[in-house]
Amino acid sequence: MSAWILPDHIADVLPSEARHIEELRRGLLDTACAYGYELVMPPLLEHLDSLLSGSGEALDLLTFKLVDQLSGRTLGIRPDTTQQVARIDAHLLNRKGVTRLCYCGPVLHAKPDRPHATREPLQFGAEIYGHAGVEADVEVIALATQSLRVAQLHDFSVDLADVRIVQRLLAGLLVDLPTLRRVHAALAVKDASELASLTRDFPQAQRDGLRALLNLYGDVEVLAEAEKALAGIPGVGPILADLRQLASRIDSPAVTFDLADLRGYSYYSGMRFAIYAQGVTDALVRGGRYDEVGAAFGRSRPAVGFSLDIKQLVPVVEPRPLKAAIRAPWVDRHDMREVIARLRQTGETVVCALPGHDDEVDEFNCDRELAEVDGQWIVRSI
Amino acid sequence: MSAWILPDHIADVLPSEARHIEELRRGLLDTACAYGYELVMPPLLEHLDSLLSGSGEALDLLTFKLVDQLSGRTLGIRPDTTQQVARIDAHLLNRKGVTRLCYCGPVLHAKPDRPHATREPLQFGAEIYGHAGVEADVEVIALATQSLRVAQLHDFSVDLADVRIVQRLLAGLLVDLPTLRRVHAALAVKDASELASLTRDFPQAQRDGLRALLNLYGDVEVLAEAEKALAGIPGVGPILADLRQLASRIDSPAVTFDLADLRGYSYYSGMRFAIYAQGVTDALVRGGRYDEVGAAFGRSRPAVGFSLDIKQLVPVVEPRPLKAAIRAPWVDRHDMREVIARLRQTGETVVCALPGHDDEVDEFNCDRELAEVDGQWIVRSI
Repeated sequence: MSAWILPDHIADVLPSEARHIEELRRGLLDTACAYGYELVMPPLLEHLDSLLSGSGEALDLLTFKLVDQLSGRTLGIRPDTTQQVARIDAHLLNRKGVTRLCYCGPVLHAKPDRPHATREPLQFGAEIYGHAGVEADVEVIALATQSLRVAQLHDFSVDLADVRIVQRLLAGLLVDLPTLRRVHAALAVKDASELASLTRDFPQAQRDGLRALLNLYGDVEVLAEAEKALAGIPGVGPILADLRQLASRIDSPAVTFDLADLRGYSYYSGMRFAIYAQGVTDALVRGGRYDEVGAAFGRSRPAVGFSLDIKQLVPVVEPRPLKAAIRAPWVDRHDMREVIARLRQTGETVVCALPGHDDEVDEFNCDRELAEVDGQWIVRSI
Repeated sequence: MSAWILPDHIADVLPSEARHIEELRRGLLDTACAYGYELVMPPLLEHLDSLLSGSGEALDLLTFKLVDQLSGRTLGIRPDTTQQVARIDAHLLNRKGVTRLCYCGPVLHAKPDRPHATREPLQFGAEIYGHAGVEADVEVIALATQSLRVAQLHDFSVDLADVRIVQRLLAGLLVDLPTLRRVHAALAVKDASELASLTRDFPQAQRDGLRALLNLYGDVEVLAEAEKALAGIPGVGPILADLRQLASRIDSPAVTFDLADLRGYSYYSGMRFAIYAQGVTDALVRGGRYDEVGAAFGRSRPAVGFSLDIKQLVPVVEPRPLKAAIRAPWVDRHDMREVIARLRQTGETVVCALPGHDDEVDEFNCDRELAEVDGQWIVRSI
């Protein structure tokens, strides 16, 4: 008897956690709505080639594939929603101006993307299309931090980077792909000796710049250091200025920088951010600019957004108390049914004890009961 | 350029419909909560054998299969949620008393189950475990009809049947499986001559009873006719009495019966119901008793419930008007940000025009704007 065993990294969500997830879900969607983001619901599965257009190898490896018996074509179950929302902006809505979209739904991963991660995150996210300026970046980060506050999380830190800094450092260099990948890997793990060895034939400015990146993490002082260390690299100055402007407008207890951070390098086209909660290793929110994301659907326009996994939020934020309920006996009388209907309309939970089950311990925290006193149905404390 | 083409019977849900679906979703879950049903969220995929345990061939054909690269085992994407909720009741909660559970989430179908159906219904449902009496049936149907009312649908009809009537008529007969299937098929399409030919060697009482079934559909008069026509069939009397009692307690504009209806025959164990809206061919809600559903998970106990597809409700019910919003200019000032934050906290949607996009036609029905008058930020009509 093992029919109840679930696949690894797949779990049921039981009532207390499910209630919490549902509350978070509503709070996040209402927040996005208050900022003017319109809800869309892309499908769980799509043709594999459109699902993965331009998104790179990492997402491909995360994607469950199956064959469509209607068409014989390969379908993928979405491992992420961003690509789909870009398709909706590009093809279905096709508006000229700014479009703000949000979404909330499950995604599936063929393998967990972190050691203890679920393979079925519940992804919430928001995107702005059609605006290339820092104002859109500011708004998206404001919505992301406000989302955490709505979840009752106040102690967090926003970490900023920009993939264009490394791009500018490597621009014009003739480097083969394996070397490039090793440079990226050395930057990612901040391995100075490996980086020195890989870059020994690079021009001095680039070599020094890449080495300097390894130490360019920390608070806003980092930007001043970077301005000095990367002064010789064309195009880096404006990027640092943008980061400074952006940082000054973020409403967060802490803002940090890691200019060597390359996560999502193949995906993002500019500013990239992550939000960390106190005492939690993995980022709760990831986002940034991916201005090329709509290109596969025939419409490349500016895009900036973020996403988070609501299931990852649950253990980090405070659970809310169970709502108190009213217990009612099972009486087949019209007047009582009306009383119960009215109570339920006002938002009360009324649990009717089914015959033979009057004495059960209930899971609903019933603190009141419906009782008949002198021919009247009244609600009284238990 | 065809990256935007979706598989057949799969569609994006765009903002106006998505908003409507989200409102229906919340209304349905809040209604179930008001009746004391606890929310659970089973996973989208499971080992195929547990997903389909005891559920029959029809569901197997609806199920997308894929291979788990972590275990090499075959997984299925849920085509229905009932089986999973039964697993949760049997194995995870394992409570002695009555358990009321509800759920809401997508399911996927490898092929559409009706000609124009989506392959990605959004299934909402509720179940009572642990109570075999008609009271649980009454409550489940009351919740189902109330769910439709919450969706602003008031003109509907509840159709009742009981799979045990056909079971009792065929009990004790030595019939081979192909013949049995043909008898079921003849009943389903009400083919009197085929039925007569198939049952010519049956005892007279059974033969007459099966023939009588073909005409036993319509309003409550049908029960009186059935009591006469099936008087000689052991065990049918109490079933008809239960149906009569149940029908008398259903709060619906119309209650009808179809005693030859065999939909879900392999699945349901007793009373079965469907709810139809005026002018819509397909049932909006299907439910009934499936007391054996937990057996595959080691705990067979009474179970009754229903499910519906929220996406199927949307075209039937009246859309709600778009919420009015407030338009704000993009001004980087602290006092204005505070005014906007306060408005959003009160439930208002405030859309900030990004620089360069002030004159855009917005999709948000902005009927007011935030403007500075004599140094004060005020909301005024547009």
